[in-house]
Amino acid sequence: MSTRRQLVLGILGGGQLARMLALAAAPLGVKSLVVDSAADACAGQVAPLVVADWTDYDALEHFARQVDVVTFDFENVPAETAHWLAERVAVFPAPRALAVAQDRLAEKTLFRECGLQTPDFKAIDTRQDLDLALAAIGAPAILKTRRLGYDGKGQFRIKSLADADAAWAALGAQAEAHGLILEAFVPFDRELSVIAVRSRDGEFRTWPLTQNWHTDGVLSLSLAPAPDIAGLQERATGLARTLAEKLDYVGVFALELFVKNGELLGNEMAPRVHNSGHWTIEGALTSQFENHVRAVLGMPLGDTSARGLSAMFNWIGELPDAAPVLEAVDAHWHDYGKQPRVGRKVGHATVCAPDADQLIERLSGVARALGRDQQAYPAVGKLMEKQ
Amino acid sequence: MSTRRQLVLGILGGGQLARMLALAAAPLGVKSLVVDSAADACAGQVAPLVVADWTDYDALEHFARQVDVVTFDFENVPAETAHWLAERVAVFPAPRALAVAQDRLAEKTLFRECGLQTPDFKAIDTRQDLDLALAAIGAPAILKTRRLGYDGKGQFRIKSLADADAAWAALGAQAEAHGLILEAFVPFDRELSVIAVRSRDGEFRTWPLTQNWHTDGVLSLSLAPAPDIAGLQERATGLARTLAEKLDYVGVFALELFVKNGELLGNEMAPRVHNSGHWTIEGALTSQFENHVRAVLGMPLGDTSARGLSAMFNWIGELPDAAPVLEAVDAHWHDYGKQPRVGRKVGHATVCAPDADQLIERLSGVARALGRDQQAYPAVGKLMEKQ
Repeated sequence: MSTRRQLVLGILGGGQLARMLALAAAPLGVKSLVVDSAADACAGQVAPLVVADWTDYDALEHFARQVDVVTFDFENVPAETAHWLAERVAVFPAPRALAVAQDRLAEKTLFRECGLQTPDFKAIDTRQDLDLALAAIGAPAILKTRRLGYDGKGQFRIKSLADADAAWAALGAQAEAHGLILEAFVPFDRELSVIAVRSRDGEFRTWPLTQNWHTDGVLSLSLAPAPDIAGLQERATGLARTLAEKLDYVGVFALELFVKNGELLGNEMAPRVHNSGHWTIEGALTSQFENHVRAVLGMPLGDTSARGLSAMFNWIGELPDAAPVLEAVDAHWHDYGKQPRVGRKVGHATVCAPDADQLIERLSGVARALGRDQQAYPAVGKLMEKQ
Repeated sequence: MSTRRQLVLGILGGGQLARMLALAAAPLGVKSLVVDSAADACAGQVAPLVVADWTDYDALEHFARQVDVVTFDFENVPAETAHWLAERVAVFPAPRALAVAQDRLAEKTLFRECGLQTPDFKAIDTRQDLDLALAAIGAPAILKTRRLGYDGKGQFRIKSLADADAAWAALGAQAEAHGLILEAFVPFDRELSVIAVRSRDGEFRTWPLTQNWHTDGVLSLSLAPAPDIAGLQERATGLARTLAEKLDYVGVFALELFVKNGELLGNEMAPRVHNSGHWTIEGALTSQFENHVRAVLGMPLGDTSARGLSAMFNWIGELPDAAPVLEAVDAHWHDYGKQPRVGRKVGHATVCAPDADQLIERLSGVARALGRDQQAYPAVGKLMEKQ
């Protein structure tokens, strides 16, 4: 018997996504090594943590020498850091794919090239651009930073043309550094996401579509497989595949979609494991985390089928009482080991069931016990439409 | 929002059981801290590791101050260490339960007190005891050390009375330090185990019975729920409950049973999570690891129902090629991150399916691709009996 060397996965960013990646990597025999500027980054509880910022090239050099592949917990790692690492070690997804997903303008342009329609949009560099764009697109519309926005951050909703000054006051200062984009506000019918994975040799799989509900721009609840999606799964999978192939993407990504009058519109792409895919830990045969680890390390992909139905509650700011979840049948608690903070994602819980009737019962039971009926109501309503 | 303090689980022993306990603890928001004398103990890849031996009381004192509860990866922690720790911090299972399970004589005596029959046995302290016991019990029989045996270690099989000298030559030197026991060899029909959990407030649950096959004294394959067990589940659960209550046991334990002419005989009790319960990670609604963490920390227990059927292959010595498992539907790879070594448990794989027909197909497919037909054959045969 010869000595073995375990593979090491390098992860840039040490939040809950890195934490769940490391937990999925361990049973595969893969060690993780995490980089984060915060010494208390929660992934550091389950894997060794290098405390360094994105420009500490001495630390990154040492990190690069210890890992077989580098991936991301956080898509806003500076492009220069990603490129610098890619000269030293395999980086997946590749910096080019990351760069597209970091820029709302490049991303939406790519969506259209792939045949995925989007809300109208215009690049905004100056105050005059904003006036011209508002004249063309009309209100309501949303002014966003092109880069570094997530979870509703870096956005201003323009309800009428009179809001242009306020929007510019809020975000105009970022026009030069990050660029801005004006997007038409679409009164969509539903929000869906497709979580997809592509391997190093081009194998491609998607999990069943997920329906998502947001509160204040942050994901509140996901339901999967999304009910009532005749034809949409196949379309979404085809679009995600086209997108992945154009970017020669490796790893898991999420494509967030609006549904309007039965048509799909592209909202954004997240070049990483995604909050709306957390249900796959218990609700699918292979989780998004495990398949991301497999993809970036060149292992075969696992089956992405759902087991029954799942609903995921996101816990924002602080955790509710765990007991109602721990006591419920096939309900699963995920505490990220973070300190509470307003707006922070601190955990989630997934409730699974073999069919819609049982999911309605379990989901509403857990929600009631938690005093979170409002959070579950939209999903329960959606499930009941079909009864 | 106030600052929170996470619970910390202390684990004595840093092998694969500690590793899987730490992986199950993390989503509950529980940090783990592991003690092992080996700096490369595999649990150290997923949790902080204190390198110390069981008599390093300075290190143990520091360890005890950092944890909320102490539990075991390894049941042969010296009783003095367990008692010493129990004076400083909550220890579950309690040292008394551990002591009974560490001693084959005390264990079998307790089984009988609980109404669980066992093969005939006699305590052996001298060569003369052995002759008298062999005269009473007859051959074949097995001479075992009372303490510190596991996985067939510390055992000598006596096929005929003429083997008495050889048995004494092999184990007689350990009579004084560890004590010996002679047990009648029972030509049993099947081996089953019941994995059970009891909480700090006395709530008790069992997982469905598991059928086990061993090779050279080491678990080779488990199948759960064990097929064809009319009446046995209820009896085994009742016996496990009686045993747990007599010991005021807290946490998960395994009760290994022989079935002979439809009757249950007690073989041994393992006062910890158990190899024959590894299938619960994917095959049950709550795994043995998660419920052990919940139990010792005073959280509500999770549902122990099986999802469909599961079969677990044990990997001994070195790992086979992972690809056939990674490529199979609902099959799950567990690499413990250890160096290969003859006889060492280095990983396992679990194959799940919704029914027996599909499990037969998946299990034999994986076994064939691995060149491990012989390892799967007994379980496939058992599943086919019912077809």
